Amino acid sequence: MSEIKIITGGVTAAKGYEAAGCAAGLRKKERLDVAMVYSQVPAKIAGTFTTNVVKAAPVKWDQMIVREEETARAIVLNSGIANACTGAEGLAANAAMADAAAQALGVKSNEILTASTGVIGMQLPLEKIVHGMKLLAEAKAEGAEAAHQAALAIMTTDTIPKEVTVTFEVQGKTVTIGGMSKGSGMIHPNMATMLGVLTTDLAISKKLLQEALSNDVVDSFNMISVDRDTSTNDTLVIFANGLAGNVEITEKDADYEAFCEALHVVTTSLAKIMAGDGEGASKLLEVTVEHAADKPKARTLAKAVITSNLVKTAIYGSDANWGRILCAMGYSGADFDPEVVDITIVSIAGVSKIVANGMATDYSEEFATEILKQEKVTVLVDMKEGDASATAWGCDLTYDYVKINGDYRS
Amino acid sequence: MSEIKIITGGVTAAKGYEAAGCAAGLRKKERLDVAMVYSQVPAKIAGTFTTNVVKAAPVKWDQMIVREEETARAIVLNSGIANACTGAEGLAANAAMADAAAQALGVKSNEILTASTGVIGMQLPLEKIVHGMKLLAEAKAEGAEAAHQAALAIMTTDTIPKEVTVTFEVQGKTVTIGGMSKGSGMIHPNMATMLGVLTTDLAISKKLLQEALSNDVVDSFNMISVDRDTSTNDTLVIFANGLAGNVEITEKDADYEAFCEALHVVTTSLAKIMAGDGEGASKLLEVTVEHAADKPKARTLAKAVITSNLVKTAIYGSDANWGRILCAMGYSGADFDPEVVDITIVSIAGVSKIVANGMATDYSEEFATEILKQEKVTVLVDMKEGDASATAWGCDLTYDYVKINGDYRS
Repeated sequence: MSEIKIITGGVTAAKGYEAAGCAAGLRKKERLDVAMVYSQVPAKIAGTFTTNVVKAAPVKWDQMIVREEETARAIVLNSGIANACTGAEGLAANAAMADAAAQALGVKSNEILTASTGVIGMQLPLEKIVHGMKLLAEAKAEGAEAAHQAALAIMTTDTIPKEVTVTFEVQGKTVTIGGMSKGSGMIHPNMATMLGVLTTDLAISKKLLQEALSNDVVDSFNMISVDRDTSTNDTLVIFANGLAGNVEITEKDADYEAFCEALHVVTTSLAKIMAGDGEGASKLLEVTVEHAADKPKARTLAKAVITSNLVKTAIYGSDANWGRILCAMGYSGADFDPEVVDITIVSIAGVSKIVANGMATDYSEEFATEILKQEKVTVLVDMKEGDASATAWGCDLTYDYVKINGDYRS
Repeated sequence: MSEIKIITGGVTAAKGYEAAGCAAGLRKKERLDVAMVYSQVPAKIAGTFTTNVVKAAPVKWDQMIVREEETARAIVLNSGIANACTGAEGLAANAAMADAAAQALGVKSNEILTASTGVIGMQLPLEKIVHGMKLLAEAKAEGAEAAHQAALAIMTTDTIPKEVTVTFEVQGKTVTIGGMSKGSGMIHPNMATMLGVLTTDLAISKKLLQEALSNDVVDSFNMISVDRDTSTNDTLVIFANGLAGNVEITEKDADYEAFCEALHVVTTSLAKIMAGDGEGASKLLEVTVEHAADKPKARTLAKAVITSNLVKTAIYGSDANWGRILCAMGYSGADFDPEVVDITIVSIAGVSKIVANGMATDYSEEFATEILKQEKVTVLVDMKEGDASATAWGCDLTYDYVKINGDYRS
């Protein structure tokens, strides 16, 4: 494994990228609500999108662009309005958003990707969004501050902006991958996450870029869940503009593997931040299923545990109610022998094996509660049936989740 | 359709049944925690059970009895401890519970069904449960009060006991079906409900009794969900002792149909009471999907809506956030055209079509909120693609759900 360094910088850290976040008046006054990530030269693009039958207008647009175009120049995003369930008017508004950005940047409309997040069913206010695109084109800049403004502008119920950046080496050249994402509720990605933008200066073929991204999400963004609700807007795109100066990667060689490893650091880091910042969440819940018969089963079991409302409320209450963990695994659809399963809980407060062979050990409830009281809690499940493992990330279910979603629109 | 009358009386309303609810000391002092339903003559039995891979000891026991025996005499139940994930010791405790009941009743152990509900992973206190069986055998009696005591004894986080009774006619004889059930959390039945006991004096073959029950649950108990967590203990059994005096039903004739209709009134009534009494629930949410292409699709769509945390919190907040309804349908796995869907909300406050052809109508938000503020809210979804329909029942997601489950064991 090559060295992967975690640095700061976000989506403008790789060579040749600019970004901006502006207030276009879609949300409360002065709130940043539009963002742009721009590549100074054409960049190869790849993307993964929601599997929801109900797809937002920008998702339909991006799917077309990613399918038909080799490169793109920018993505523009807005928060506050999802532009989903908005019919022909919504498609037209999205196209107008792309057109306005293209015109302001002096590029073609089919070089612009779009993404929206917010309330479903509302139409984008056309004048405001078009004006917003002009503001972004004027404001775009290199540097970490510009990237940060973009990350801020795409937040909805997120409490923190989400940025991760790494560098690694390819052919002696330093390559950077920067990423930002948003997502706090309606988070149960399937093929992608809520909104995520990744930028790299790596030179790589479009085919391999898409393959790397598609393979990656299966074990990163697709392994997180806040509320089991798969959004209509899930979008993850990556730009690769080649400015790092390496010879373009066109085969699955060691360079490709190095890229995949670095990419996975960025995506799993963003995924974990998203899960821990789930709506109302007070804790990050990490569940690792090990020694499962195969990988799909390990994933299914891990996801069943992090998505169980009963597990999530028990974690909130710091209650080692392990029966709910085994129960959730039991209805996951995966077949297994519950009578061999071990369960161990881990946090900075310590480690305690609470279940051995499907039954309670004589663990201390007090110590278990102490472990579960921490901000990051890991549940290790040993299936004792094979070599496969998988990790999923979620959060606890709290009063605040109910509060946030009981009056989201008010 | 024959006449079906709803009466009072519960599990002792049909001829030849007795019941009891007693305090065996499994829970807080004086709390009723064991129950019995007894047939004065051998009764045909049928049952449906949880599909969870993790099955409680009493579920394993009942599945064996229902598979191998034509008739049984009684079911004994306890609350407080689920006897799940308890290994060989749990199986032995369950057998001891059945043995004690059999001895006290002067029947054989394989004529006794068992059911448990409560905390997973704890062992049954053997002496207390055996003593409880004796108390029940002494206390059992005919009449509505005895049935009511049994319904009370099986409650856990339920706020109300759940009893439904109907009469109908077969061959000029009056037949009665009485039922009781419990269930408030970990409610997402699949093949059965939490705990449900039905008694009838109908004469019917065991084969048809099982078939009627198995077909029934698909559109009754299997269509409710409180929290998407399928229990380890789901058990629904029916006793049919033949004392109504009709000629035994052995074919799917008009008499069989009359029974199925009456049975469905009992099961859907109990199911709705359970959904409305979901943990922390302030409202019953009923979702009817109509004009779907086929029945399985209609069921899938209806269940996706009632199980969405985001829909449930919006209903709690009386917020007509219909995008979440369409979003939940979109990730249900069913394929459909979102751009033809209509959505109408209904309650005693009125009716409002809020979505037409996948987009918002110009409905009044104020009136929509007024409709959603009521204790029972119905969402009608028109798919416009066929003739199939299905109804699912759930509840809102509230602070109290989080509270109840954050410290269930404390």
